Amino acid sequence: MGLANACPSKYQRKTMVRHFIKFTDLSRDEVLHVFERSAALKAARARGEYIHPHLAGRSVAMLFNKNSTRTRVSFECGIHELGGHAVVLSENQTQFSRGEPISHSARVLSRFVSAIVIRTYAQSQLDDLARFGSIPVINALTDEGHPCQILTDIFTATEKFPGQPLEKIKMAWIGDGNNMANSWIEAAGVLGFPLTLACPEGYEPDKALLARAQAANPAVKLVRDPREAAKGAWAVNTDVWASMGQEGEKGEREKAFKGVYIVDSALMAQADPKAIFMHCLPAHPGEEVTEEVLESPASVIFDEAENRLHAQKGLMEFLLPKIA
Amino acid sequence: MGLANACPSKYQRKTMVRHFIKFTDLSRDEVLHVFERSAALKAARARGEYIHPHLAGRSVAMLFNKNSTRTRVSFECGIHELGGHAVVLSENQTQFSRGEPISHSARVLSRFVSAIVIRTYAQSQLDDLARFGSIPVINALTDEGHPCQILTDIFTATEKFPGQPLEKIKMAWIGDGNNMANSWIEAAGVLGFPLTLACPEGYEPDKALLARAQAANPAVKLVRDPREAAKGAWAVNTDVWASMGQEGEKGEREKAFKGVYIVDSALMAQADPKAIFMHCLPAHPGEEVTEEVLESPASVIFDEAENRLHAQKGLMEFLLPKIA
Amino acid sequence: MGLANACPSKYQRKTMVRHFIKFTDLSRDEVLHVFERSAALKAARARGEYIHPHLAGRSVAMLFNKNSTRTRVSFECGIHELGGHAVVLSENQTQFSRGEPISHSARVLSRFVSAIVIRTYAQSQLDDLARFGSIPVINALTDEGHPCQILTDIFTATEKFPGQPLEKIKMAWIGDGNNMANSWIEAAGVLGFPLTLACPEGYEPDKALLARAQAANPAVKLVRDPREAAKGAWAVNTDVWASMGQEGEKGEREKAFKGVYIVDSALMAQADPKAIFMHCLPAHPGEEVTEEVLESPASVIFDEAENRLHAQKGLMEFLLPKIA
Repeated sequence: MGLANACPSKYQRKTMVRHFIKFTDLSRDEVLHVFERSAALKAARARGEYIHPHLAGRSVAMLFNKNSTRTRVSFECGIHELGGHAVVLSENQTQFSRGEPISHSARVLSRFVSAIVIRTYAQSQLDDLARFGSIPVINALTDEGHPCQILTDIFTATEKFPGQPLEKIKMAWIGDGNNMANSWIEAAGVLGFPLTLACPEGYEPDKALLARAQAANPAVKLVRDPREAAKGAWAVNTDVWASMGQEGEKGEREKAFKGVYIVDSALMAQADPKAIFMHCLPAHPGEEVTEEVLESPASVIFDEAENRLHAQKGLMEFLLPKIA
Repeated sequence: MGLANACPSKYQRKTMVRHFIKFTDLSRDEVLHVFERSAALKAARARGEYIHPHLAGRSVAMLFNKNSTRTRVSFECGIHELGGHAVVLSENQTQFSRGEPISHSARVLSRFVSAIVIRTYAQSQLDDLARFGSIPVINALTDEGHPCQILTDIFTATEKFPGQPLEKIKMAWIGDGNNMANSWIEAAGVLGFPLTLACPEGYEPDKALLARAQAANPAVKLVRDPREAAKGAWAVNTDVWASMGQEGEKGEREKAFKGVYIVDSALMAQADPKAIFMHCLPAHPGEEVTEEVLESPASVIFDEAENRLHAQKGLMEFLLPKIA
Repeated sequence: MGLANACPSKYQRKTMVRHFIKFTDLSRDEVLHVFERSAALKAARARGEYIHPHLAGRSVAMLFNKNSTRTRVSFECGIHELGGHAVVLSENQTQFSRGEPISHSARVLSRFVSAIVIRTYAQSQLDDLARFGSIPVINALTDEGHPCQILTDIFTATEKFPGQPLEKIKMAWIGDGNNMANSWIEAAGVLGFPLTLACPEGYEPDKALLARAQAANPAVKLVRDPREAAKGAWAVNTDVWASMGQEGEKGEREKAFKGVYIVDSALMAQADPKAIFMHCLPAHPGEEVTEEVLESPASVIFDEAENRLHAQKGLMEFLLPKIA
């Protein structure tokens, strides 16, 4: 197929297991390499070359302790397109709920599957899986981060602004300083693009994480006013006011976000004329973003969703070295 | 494998997406073409040729909001035998339950998978998926229809009466004027076979749908007496008195069906001597059909169940054009 | 691939369907043949030859009415590595819960899939599936037995003591006379290795089953004192005090097991100096076994877990004859 051997050996660190638990687990060069491969895999698929059997015969465990559509489907399809098999385990179907030490689960899974994709609450669970296991652990959303989504979003931006260096692509984040915001901040630290986040009081991203990123990249800023964040941005990003598991805080959150932290045409007018709008979905039209913006030519939300597939295939290809 | 290119190009309408939401979505010629392919795929499998990689590398989403055994297993096996991967999503594992607009879900899924097989309550959900998405939508049972089952049943009848034109195969439906009955009526409208349905008062099939089919095929009749429907029939069909989700109406329904709407040897004696008995299963022996009839030589219920696999493979091959 | 034709034709009994519902369903020669194939498949996988397409295009139903991690993942990966597809059905997603006669389910599934792997409560359900169906039924744990685990455990022991005849490998079972104990006893009857079980009063294994095994193999013994069982053993095995579904008996069981039926270093000191420790997992460190023993060099629990994959692949290859 020609693609199989395209992953340069300098990225094939067989001596140590690589993870993608947080965005900082990859270097700038490695991210750019993953983007290159993602683009190649995307182009091949568009030509009808669905199968690129990098994982042929291998299985990947998908541990999902929260609902999921995009992440679930994009990983499951991507694993199939790489020739592998996704073993989807929801919390209530497994022994994890029976109090087995995670040091045992990690070592057992490492014998059966070639990687673990996990969506759960505590990031520490991923750290433990990585510590005790011997296979790559991929964060498919935790309370602290959503690096696969941000990897996809930046890939999408590079695709929409071809030939432009990352350093020029000014990013804006409007709204909750949640796991998405955290991963955006980490990504800016690693990749060096300008990022301004506008978050309501009480909903700021993790302080220590922000400080670390700012030390590496002074163009990472936290502000209060969405217009300040959007000003001149090439990409405007937002997320729902209340994420999964926060449904109980809905009323309280509405008070903090309503009327201000909403991406509408007026806010988009603050951005660069060529600016795109991104959203990880599901969106709540009329809340954090207007229907008008969602369906506007600037909106790339469905290309962005599709790119989950391509970016994650590139990531898995990188993290799981080809078997000799 | 020889089979791959057997689908004549005249049926490959690449310019528009085809669906199978209701039986009338296919023309008579197209149904006969699907039957031909289903028979060829069945014969190949019987020779041990399990794999016919029409969908190689492609994935199909299976959205199941109701329990399922036959539909679930037959589609999942069929997709595997066509080289594809079934992504099985039950309602409580996905974001669909979190209030995402279906116009978003439809467009997102269209980027990841090559078709959607859906079992749910409201037919309107399928229409919306078809309207907003860009991939085939296949009805795997709704409150209004069960076209894959009826496609299978007619395929089974043509197999049991080889060489006989469809117009001669007189069909009888005994019992509930439910989603199955609706699809039988639509199929009779499309294909032109004689069909008599005997339904209890208050449990008649959809009136408008019946009128439309009768306009196309005057040999579609609704009667009250099962003996009248069975008389001279080549195939006698029935279903449980209370389908999934109607368990609460069980007592009331029993009053309307008991003692009359039951396929027993006496009723089968009214049919043509070569008549077959069909049931989509699960059956409740001793209720809508006797154990004696279920296990009689006339009963083709397990061949019929198996044919779900073959007919749906033929259908998917037709709806999902081969990638160049 | 070379492996495909390695299964000698003398074991290919095409004229009758073979099952693995209880350990005694295989003869000594057949078990040794499965071990040989399991070892070959394990060695091939270690060389990176993940795929051995014995089941290409075929599907296997996995009916799981109880939680599972190891069994679920090992079978699902194994089926994929054999080129097949696992259709995973949990009780609440299928029609089985709607009261369909098992004689129907068995015949329907036999048309779609090539084998049934089932985890449930009553062994009689497996017997019925075998009686009415026409495909192999594999016990993935019932209240009465767990033969796949014991097959794996004995395979693991033969691997750890290469070149040693089975008759010399003295086995000890410490604790509950549960489904695991039953399958150990049956295995000893079939294979002729010495086995001593130490079970608390009231928690003895099935008497009739024990008597049958002892008639075939006088070296099968039931004692009360764990030290007596461990004395000179080459492999010390145990299990949790309360298995799945017995959580309600936890307090009562603790009284019977605590302080006595625990594998600690003192007990291991009774065993042969080269003795290994085995546990089917999940383990409860500090209850039936100490953390020290679990993490000691004698402990082979993760090799044992991995071997589920290899032994079950060997078993499936044996039970599902290659398609001509």
